[in-house]
Amino acid sequence: MSIKHALSVTREQDFAAWYQAVVSEADMAEDSGVRGCMVIRPWGYGIWERMQRLLDDRIKATGHDNCYFPLFIPLSYFEKEAEHVEGFAKEMAVVTHHRLKAEGGRLVVDPDAKLEEPLVVRPTSETVIGAAFSRWVQSWRDLPVLINQWANVVRWEMRTRMFLRTAEFLWQEGHTVHANEAEAREHTLRMLEVYREFAESCVAMPVIAGEKPENERFPGAVATYSIEAMMQDGKALQAGTSHFLGTTFSTAQNIRFQNAEGQLELAQTTSWGVSTRMIGGMIMVHGDDDGLRVPPRLAPSQVVIVPMLRDTPEDAEVMAYARSLAAELGAQVALGEPMRAHLDGKAIKASNKRWSWVKKGAPVIVEVGPRDVAAGNVSVIRRDRLYNEAGKLASSIEPRGDFVARASGLLEEIQAGLFAEAKARLDGSIRRDVTDFADLERVFAEGVKFPGWLEVEWSKPSGAELDAVDQRLKALKLTLRNAPNDAAPAAGTCIFTGRPAVERVLVGRSY
Amino acid sequence: MSIKHALSVTREQDFAAWYQAVVSEADMAEDSGVRGCMVIRPWGYGIWERMQRLLDDRIKATGHDNCYFPLFIPLSYFEKEAEHVEGFAKEMAVVTHHRLKAEGGRLVVDPDAKLEEPLVVRPTSETVIGAAFSRWVQSWRDLPVLINQWANVVRWEMRTRMFLRTAEFLWQEGHTVHANEAEAREHTLRMLEVYREFAESCVAMPVIAGEKPENERFPGAVATYSIEAMMQDGKALQAGTSHFLGTTFSTAQNIRFQNAEGQLELAQTTSWGVSTRMIGGMIMVHGDDDGLRVPPRLAPSQVVIVPMLRDTPEDAEVMAYARSLAAELGAQVALGEPMRAHLDGKAIKASNKRWSWVKKGAPVIVEVGPRDVAAGNVSVIRRDRLYNEAGKLASSIEPRGDFVARASGLLEEIQAGLFAEAKARLDGSIRRDVTDFADLERVFAEGVKFPGWLEVEWSKPSGAELDAVDQRLKALKLTLRNAPNDAAPAAGTCIFTGRPAVERVLVGRSY
Repeated sequence: MSIKHALSVTREQDFAAWYQAVVSEADMAEDSGVRGCMVIRPWGYGIWERMQRLLDDRIKATGHDNCYFPLFIPLSYFEKEAEHVEGFAKEMAVVTHHRLKAEGGRLVVDPDAKLEEPLVVRPTSETVIGAAFSRWVQSWRDLPVLINQWANVVRWEMRTRMFLRTAEFLWQEGHTVHANEAEAREHTLRMLEVYREFAESCVAMPVIAGEKPENERFPGAVATYSIEAMMQDGKALQAGTSHFLGTTFSTAQNIRFQNAEGQLELAQTTSWGVSTRMIGGMIMVHGDDDGLRVPPRLAPSQVVIVPMLRDTPEDAEVMAYARSLAAELGAQVALGEPMRAHLDGKAIKASNKRWSWVKKGAPVIVEVGPRDVAAGNVSVIRRDRLYNEAGKLASSIEPRGDFVARASGLLEEIQAGLFAEAKARLDGSIRRDVTDFADLERVFAEGVKFPGWLEVEWSKPSGAELDAVDQRLKALKLTLRNAPNDAAPAAGTCIFTGRPAVERVLVGRSY
Repeated sequence: MSIKHALSVTREQDFAAWYQAVVSEADMAEDSGVRGCMVIRPWGYGIWERMQRLLDDRIKATGHDNCYFPLFIPLSYFEKEAEHVEGFAKEMAVVTHHRLKAEGGRLVVDPDAKLEEPLVVRPTSETVIGAAFSRWVQSWRDLPVLINQWANVVRWEMRTRMFLRTAEFLWQEGHTVHANEAEAREHTLRMLEVYREFAESCVAMPVIAGEKPENERFPGAVATYSIEAMMQDGKALQAGTSHFLGTTFSTAQNIRFQNAEGQLELAQTTSWGVSTRMIGGMIMVHGDDDGLRVPPRLAPSQVVIVPMLRDTPEDAEVMAYARSLAAELGAQVALGEPMRAHLDGKAIKASNKRWSWVKKGAPVIVEVGPRDVAAGNVSVIRRDRLYNEAGKLASSIEPRGDFVARASGLLEEIQAGLFAEAKARLDGSIRRDVTDFADLERVFAEGVKFPGWLEVEWSKPSGAELDAVDQRLKALKLTLRNAPNDAAPAAGTCIFTGRPAVERVLVGRSY
């Protein structure tokens, strides 16, 4: 039988339209009317707050302090690091004036209030934080400096997509200074591992951690690492990056320290970031044709209680029952935190409320009607198993006490289940048997649907040779993702150059 | 005897210089090199994070959800509300271009990338949030809408001061929509009360809550309320505001709803905000000549453990003792949260570490040396009672177990003590006996030091009459602060107009 799903478009029919439908129907975000900027609505922002809390705990546990640096960066700061500005110069918002004035009943920019030096709205903060580091770092005793900031950044994107690519987005950017290269490289990988663990254990999103090829490096970086997640359409999403910056920014910003022997040395720096893009990844990894499915660790409300109100005197009893149930659940611990139970007492039809929470992806929805109250029961819907074998909504009526006792375990099971499902899909969608470029072309040929990535052996070409590889892949709408840290060693020849391979690299379509 | 204090300047000598010294010596913030913008350093930002957490809990407990709205607001949005833009037009950062380009080895703004409509960096978000409200609000069933955002905002200030007045600052701005005026007015006062309670119970900063006079209203507001705190120099700091906006923004942005009777009505809105300015208030209320004193509820580290390391083999034992003490303290509960104990193991002289924590204002500093380890003791310094009667640093040696047992109570006592001290100063610095303008002039005359405010009776003049009052006060460098909500009723004549008084209002110098 065919199920009538909650969204008007399925993943199969049109994945891009489905994504927009989830973002909209799950009340995640909406167009703001301001070019390239979105409004993040309460459910979407609540998920971001959960991500922030969980990631921030991990960033602090690895010794970092949070700080805050200016939104505006003087133009001249960018000139100091040529390679860096090259990578960003084409897409920055520039503040040129500091006053408006009224003119003929309209508001206009006051030409008398032109800034002497234009200010760039930060696309990332290496330059301005580097300037602070040069003040902070004098001696080896000051090192390492480990800081992080949660901030908004702006990159003027021409084509935008909610969460995935917006002009303004929210992120954290970590920045560290170290006394030597080995320590800085180790820290770069430590933070990559923090991201991997966060993505997998909190977002329930399996990722491949590895090094980006040279042409995909952050502007100014010596090495860039990423975690890559696979969306349900088989495309890759770069979900977090960690950069070893060597002495690029310490040279540009003069970050030097006196070592234990009294000599002046250039410091080594790193930077790493995760953004609201992670929310787009969560949607495309876990969403289904009924909307979003939020992993319990990220769900602002883990258990939503929907009282079936009918404008009758019984309503008061139903509400009292629902309220005490919410309190009882709130006193439980789930996944190491107080359980987040929410009572939806809005004056809206219960079935509409049910479906709105299905679309939002609350992990567990509990319906309570007069009959449940009389029998001491609850009706439980698991968002991860919405339909039974007959294709009907799977709502299980059970004694309230039984449900309260198993709620915490249920949330753990849902968290683990979403991860396992995504992990099986990822593992089943990486082919490692293609050794020939013609085969690669057949795999990704027009009209052929291979929803996944290839892991191929390559000689890790550089410069013009790498550009040529990039061009050949681009023609197939493909990109190099990363060279997985835990890939098997290379044994054969490079699929691109025919020379002996040195490592394995992922190839796929991407966001 | 005279104590040699940790700061180079005392409050008595030069309050403004003392403030800058605390900001700098306590590692709170520093000049960023970007005009009007500061770098908030880890200790300062840690305090802001504590404020965010505690205030956010209160904002959520009163039914609000967090959202995020664009940084940029199109110029045309401001044109819709004339009175509002009038109040902000003179001081906004304007983005006019979206690209840079290289030219003769320099970076320049690309003239080909001029925006069709300039974008204003938000000075506050009523206009852009109002546009969202007009989409969200259709029916009485959608009301109230209760939202909040934590964000950076920019107001182009000519003279800036760390935390108190900076071009970019961090804040929360709450925005709500209601079906009728009574409910919106009630909500405005409810949030004012949230601010009062937060300031007093968390920041330990007593405040006077009341309504601002008409000339001090937020641009576009029908009524503006504030909490006013008294700094140690007797000046007032407006530490939070709550605005009843009536239908000003719902008219401009077309926020209408169908009421229960099916008729279309304009909604009523409110907005309210607290910013990083609160940190400046905390400094000027609690700081002393040895630096900052942070109330325990706000202190990122409540108990700092300083091991006395001497590069000897005994160091390992001292560190182990300090580590286990930190763990033991971290397992305690203080002021309703896990106690925040911090072990400062940096390779710096112990006495320098001690004084750096004194200047930062950690509530309790515990020193541990080899003798303490041998005897099972700790040496405890209370930041709120730094010196004994002989003017010496008051360090109390006590059994470790005794200290651990009393640590939680000690933090409560310090929190309460800081509030009581500030409350006594506030209460003792408001004079209510001045009924004559000539007396007021004498009280605030040049060279006379009256560190505080007057609460006087007035007729609450409006328009030009109020402007005249304002001018007379300005000549004395005074401003009207607010009409306290809980002031005694007025019984006499207005000190300004000679007409019958209708309420009592605060007059004082201010930041």
